[in-house]
Amino acid sequence: MGDNMEYYAGEYDVIVIGAGHAGCEAALACSRMGLKTLVTAINLDSIAMMACNPSIGGPAKGNLVREIDALGGEMGINTDHTMIQIRTLNTKKGPAVRAFRAQVDKKRYSERMKWVLENQENLYMKQTEVVDILTEEGKVTGVITNLGARYSCKAAIVATGVYLNGKIVIGDVSYEGGPNGLFPAKGLSESLKKLGFELRRFKTGTPARIDGKSVDFSKMMEQPGDENMKAFSFMTKEINIKQNSCYLTYTNETTHKIIRDNIHRSPLFTGGVEGVGPRYCPSIETKIVNFPDRESHQIFIEPEGINTREMYVQGMSSSLPEDVQIDMLRSIKGLENCEMMRTAYAIDYDCINPQDLKLTLESKHIEGLYFAGQINGSSGYEEAAAQGIMAGINAALKLKGKEPFILDRSEAYIGVLIDDLVTKGTNEPYRMMTSRAEYRLVLRQDNADLRLTQKGYDVGLVTEERYNAFIKKKENIENEIERLKCKSISPVDKVIEYLRKYNSADIKSGVSLYELLKRPEITYASLAEIDEEMPGLSPDEAEEVEILIKYEGYIKKQLTQIEQFKKLENRKLHDDIEYNQIKGLSSEARQKLSEIRPSNIGQASRISGVSPADISVLLVYLEQLRRR
Amino acid sequence: MGDNMEYYAGEYDVIVIGAGHAGCEAALACSRMGLKTLVTAINLDSIAMMACNPSIGGPAKGNLVREIDALGGEMGINTDHTMIQIRTLNTKKGPAVRAFRAQVDKKRYSERMKWVLENQENLYMKQTEVVDILTEEGKVTGVITNLGARYSCKAAIVATGVYLNGKIVIGDVSYEGGPNGLFPAKGLSESLKKLGFELRRFKTGTPARIDGKSVDFSKMMEQPGDENMKAFSFMTKEINIKQNSCYLTYTNETTHKIIRDNIHRSPLFTGGVEGVGPRYCPSIETKIVNFPDRESHQIFIEPEGINTREMYVQGMSSSLPEDVQIDMLRSIKGLENCEMMRTAYAIDYDCINPQDLKLTLESKHIEGLYFAGQINGSSGYEEAAAQGIMAGINAALKLKGKEPFILDRSEAYIGVLIDDLVTKGTNEPYRMMTSRAEYRLVLRQDNADLRLTQKGYDVGLVTEERYNAFIKKKENIENEIERLKCKSISPVDKVIEYLRKYNSADIKSGVSLYELLKRPEITYASLAEIDEEMPGLSPDEAEEVEILIKYEGYIKKQLTQIEQFKKLENRKLHDDIEYNQIKGLSSEARQKLSEIRPSNIGQASRISGVSPADISVLLVYLEQLRRR
Ligand SMILES: Cc1cc2nc3c(=O)[nH]c(=O)nc-3n(C[C@H](O)[C@H](O)[C@H](O)COP(=O)(O)OP(=O)(O)OC[C@H]3O[C@@H](n4cnc5c(N)ncnc54)[C@H](O)[C@@H]3O)c2cc1C
Ligand SMILES: Cc1cc2nc3c(=O)[nH]c(=O)nc-3n(C[C@H](O)[C@H](O)[C@H](O)COP(=O)(O)OP(=O)(O)OC[C@H]3O[C@@H](n4cnc5c(N)ncnc54)[C@H](O)[C@@H]3O)c2cc1C
Repeated sequence: MGDNMEYYAGEYDVIVIGAGHAGCEAALACSRMGLKTLVTAINLDSIAMMACNPSIGGPAKGNLVREIDALGGEMGINTDHTMIQIRTLNTKKGPAVRAFRAQVDKKRYSERMKWVLENQENLYMKQTEVVDILTEEGKVTGVITNLGARYSCKAAIVATGVYLNGKIVIGDVSYEGGPNGLFPAKGLSESLKKLGFELRRFKTGTPARIDGKSVDFSKMMEQPGDENMKAFSFMTKEINIKQNSCYLTYTNETTHKIIRDNIHRSPLFTGGVEGVGPRYCPSIETKIVNFPDRESHQIFIEPEGINTREMYVQGMSSSLPEDVQIDMLRSIKGLENCEMMRTAYAIDYDCINPQDLKLTLESKHIEGLYFAGQINGSSGYEEAAAQGIMAGINAALKLKGKEPFILDRSEAYIGVLIDDLVTKGTNEPYRMMTSRAEYRLVLRQDNADLRLTQKGYDVGLVTEERYNAFIKKKENIENEIERLKCKSISPVDKVIEYLRKYNSADIKSGVSLYELLKRPEITYASLAEIDEEMPGLSPDEAEEVEILIKYEGYIKKQLTQIEQFKKLENRKLHDDIEYNQIKGLSSEARQKLSEIRPSNIGQASRISGVSPADISVLLVYLEQLRRR
Repeated sequence: MGDNMEYYAGEYDVIVIGAGHAGCEAALACSRMGLKTLVTAINLDSIAMMACNPSIGGPAKGNLVREIDALGGEMGINTDHTMIQIRTLNTKKGPAVRAFRAQVDKKRYSERMKWVLENQENLYMKQTEVVDILTEEGKVTGVITNLGARYSCKAAIVATGVYLNGKIVIGDVSYEGGPNGLFPAKGLSESLKKLGFELRRFKTGTPARIDGKSVDFSKMMEQPGDENMKAFSFMTKEINIKQNSCYLTYTNETTHKIIRDNIHRSPLFTGGVEGVGPRYCPSIETKIVNFPDRESHQIFIEPEGINTREMYVQGMSSSLPEDVQIDMLRSIKGLENCEMMRTAYAIDYDCINPQDLKLTLESKHIEGLYFAGQINGSSGYEEAAAQGIMAGINAALKLKGKEPFILDRSEAYIGVLIDDLVTKGTNEPYRMMTSRAEYRLVLRQDNADLRLTQKGYDVGLVTEERYNAFIKKKENIENEIERLKCKSISPVDKVIEYLRKYNSADIKSGVSLYELLKRPEITYASLAEIDEEMPGLSPDEAEEVEILIKYEGYIKKQLTQIEQFKKLENRKLHDDIEYNQIKGLSSEARQKLSEIRPSNIGQASRISGVSPADISVLLVYLEQLRRR
């Protein structure tokens, strides 16, 4: 590429490099917040492409989707429009782990997201490969594409997913490639290195797609959708779809033997795969090696869409040679005659160390350069989208001269995700799980709007329509809880009868409905039998009232913990503290603190290598500063 | 790729390499004719992908679609299901050039075709790249893929389009690539060369896609669809869609100056493009260079689909650098502020010399190896599909031990297409046009079913349902023509009045309705005013009756010519004639005849370099043979 062909192609406030799940949310956030935004993709036919599983949500991931939605993002709405099955998982467990999971029509998902982007004011979309990021005096000034177009900008968001120097690996075959048979991105890694970013190699994998016609579903367990269909978005009025089923089957000893007999041909073991794989989405061969005693593993057969017979084989991600893949598939019950339509593969790609980022997802050393999604070492659509919306909001706020927008670990799974990445870093593709959240009883999916809509509104992303709906809902819930507290019932016949019907202890004297509802066997809905004044709450409002009352004790306890937590989060650490000068800090702490530059004591305490003793030293130091 | 990784992956009757327009028809034909068929594509998300214009049909191309349909192919039905606009072109010209043209939703077209393939019995579909074709003693025996799968087969159809060693060129940037940002095919060219095929380099190009939001349509001429919506397929009962418009604008002197000023940067002139381009779909820069006096060229803005704002800029195919592309687009009325979403590009690719093929599209020197589509040097979706169905039928017939199926130039545009390619060869991407057909008054789109359904039924591709509909239609037409011939009307008041109403000369005595209908000013529909016994023909039947009667004279003349033509086509030339031994033949004729090995005198007469004198010599030779 000679200099002669470079040309000036225009100016944008923000340029989003990548239109995957992260890039789409980032671009929508910026443009909806009024900034002239350009979003680029290597292939415009792969906007918000679901390169792997045809589903959105699940424990923790579903919470992320609802948080994105509450902030004014698109993932939830897009899922609602394109889902082909919806279930609520863990209905019998506590509300902290309850989660929606939708099967989605991949083609529709991508097409509708593209349509939303195309129709968004201030948003421009181009198919082009960014090969260079331009900076001046440590600030982003623009980007250059492979066709020599130079765009100038005030901020850029890198959301390049698994494309950077992507390498596809299947058995002993490997070649340069992006996901799903698309081109990889080849220039940008070099540019990032030149800008001082340390690049790592991670990998992820996807299972085969098989022909539904060749599957014997009668040998599997059908997994139908729920009768009572829920929506991801707080704005969706109703979901009314024909529910499509998934099917459950299992690997067996034969499957495992085939894999063990061929493990020497796996690139994971021959060295064909360089990158570090995801611990929580391992390939089937990794599972067999790591859990030699397990007699079988669950395999779900999931439709890729409604207008295709292709099916996804969840649980069988692999980079074994194709012949081994076919043998292992056909060893499974119901798949004896299955025909593979697309071969499973692993992909190796470059990503950065997220510890190079601030909590705003801005680079620590290049101003105006943000990173979101898989490039930060995460994996998963929801994780990517969550980072995307946060990077977008922060880029926009910065250009508007406003304060950054940070969610802490007590406010949102998004906060946990970003804090984990930025503060602790990750040595493998990071995936969100409920166990990562200390305050998961508070970070429920049902209350994501109550937690975040106001914040989304304050930053300017939430529409008036959404905001008004939220205010109304909040009032309804508060009023109803008040009413239940005030309304007392006496042990009249009707009440006694009611209590006996639900196997609940008799009452001797007047008791509030609020107290009654705390009893496990009493549901909010059933109260209607003894309470004629019940307002017509929506199912969501009713659920909220019920959870808040039933779990009041636990929630209160968690809120107290959060108060403690907040105290440390509020002890700010300035960017220019010279940790090397602070006496009493261990040398490891000095080094880590200088590198990570945490923005508060809480964050500092989560850095690996920073001990409670170091934190005490820091607290003393801050106290001294304050006194001066 | 080591030998160690090769594995045996199964057996098929026929393997179709490629699932573009040619491959889809080929695969459907084989599987519908009962053969176990495998169809492969480099990317399963690009089945029947429309890599360029979002439209099907037009003069000559529309005829091809209807012929494919009459034979039991899918292109017409698929277009009917996914069209977003339909027009009949040349309504004011004669029936020979009348043609339907549909704007199609590209995504839907591809998705539905894939769905049809997925649901077809005997048909298996796999995403894989074929890198080698295996033969034994001059016969196809199988193929090998890039992942080492070896499939055996009895016949193979190569329908690889523009993918073989594809190279994308935009200004001074060029890289290996297939169309639409997909991977090229890299191994198969070498394999074809080893099998003795001479490969050539052709090229084709596509214009930019622009953002519909950025276009000022008020400055252009709207091109709406027809009120009276027609279907491509003879099996489609009704088309009832919301018609989407296209828009007409023009290049101007500024556009042309921008191109001229930058022509030195065009790869067509710098040598960046190696391949020979299509004469009848030239790039805009070629048009400017070849027609320096033209003050403007038509530009049509066409929607790429209904769920996208992307629009196709017909007439602006280009491989100029991106900056020049933007400048030239923005010089056009209505496009002053247009935003480019995808850059125009040219693609260079390998194709074979179709003269290496028989009229069945089977290779002359490798038994069981067929070729169809752009690999044969043609361009266009319809041209590809037409070859695909013929290759598919012939492969199937061969495996069933039946006679080949060849359409001659008097029977179908398909016949003209294949005869042109195979007999005359082509030095540039070949495109079908009405002017290529000598007998175009007979090869109309309206009578494609009458010409070909019986043949499609005889080879076993046409369903009973289609056949019965055809028989009924044919009877209705014949009966009605008979009736019109028999029914005489006299100059009664009502008739005189009728004739005057249509400015038609009075009649003095009884005259048949048949005679009356020959008058240009009298339409079949209007006859109802004087004829109470008119049967309720369908619009198609009525059109047919009208054309057959009105154009009877011309058609008869053409049928006489066809009789002459057939005489020569029926003078068979055996495969083993030693032309070098025939005295009196010019040396050029000897060489060409030995190479092409025409199957009859007619075909021989169309070989360039074979003169009428040579043909006389051949006729004498045949006569001598016969006498012996
Ligand atoms: C094979 C595979 C298996 C996976 N398995 C799982 C799984 O089991 N579970 C799970 O949750 N997640 C899985 N994932 C991860 C999930 O797909 C990704 O995490 C998610 O899509 C990442 O979103 P993203 O927005 O960061 O990037 P992507 O969705 O990868 O999007 C990247 C975008 O950037 C564009 N781009 C890249 N480079 C450039 C450039 N230089 N210039 C312009 N545009 C560029 C691309 O065109 C694309 O639009 C898998 C992914 C793959 C590929
Ligand atoms: C840039 C561009 C511009 C064009 N412009 C026009 C135009 O203006 N007007 C017009 O009428 N036509 C145009 N065409 C031509 C038209 O698109 C093609 O003629 C038509 O699509 C050819 O159909 P096909 O079936 O021969 O091949 P394609 O549609 O190209 O399909 C080829 C198929 O083969 C598969 N394949 C290739 N190699 C392998 C392999 N080794 N193993 C397995 N599978 C393989 C591919 O995955 C694909 O499925 C254009 C095409 C392109 C790309």
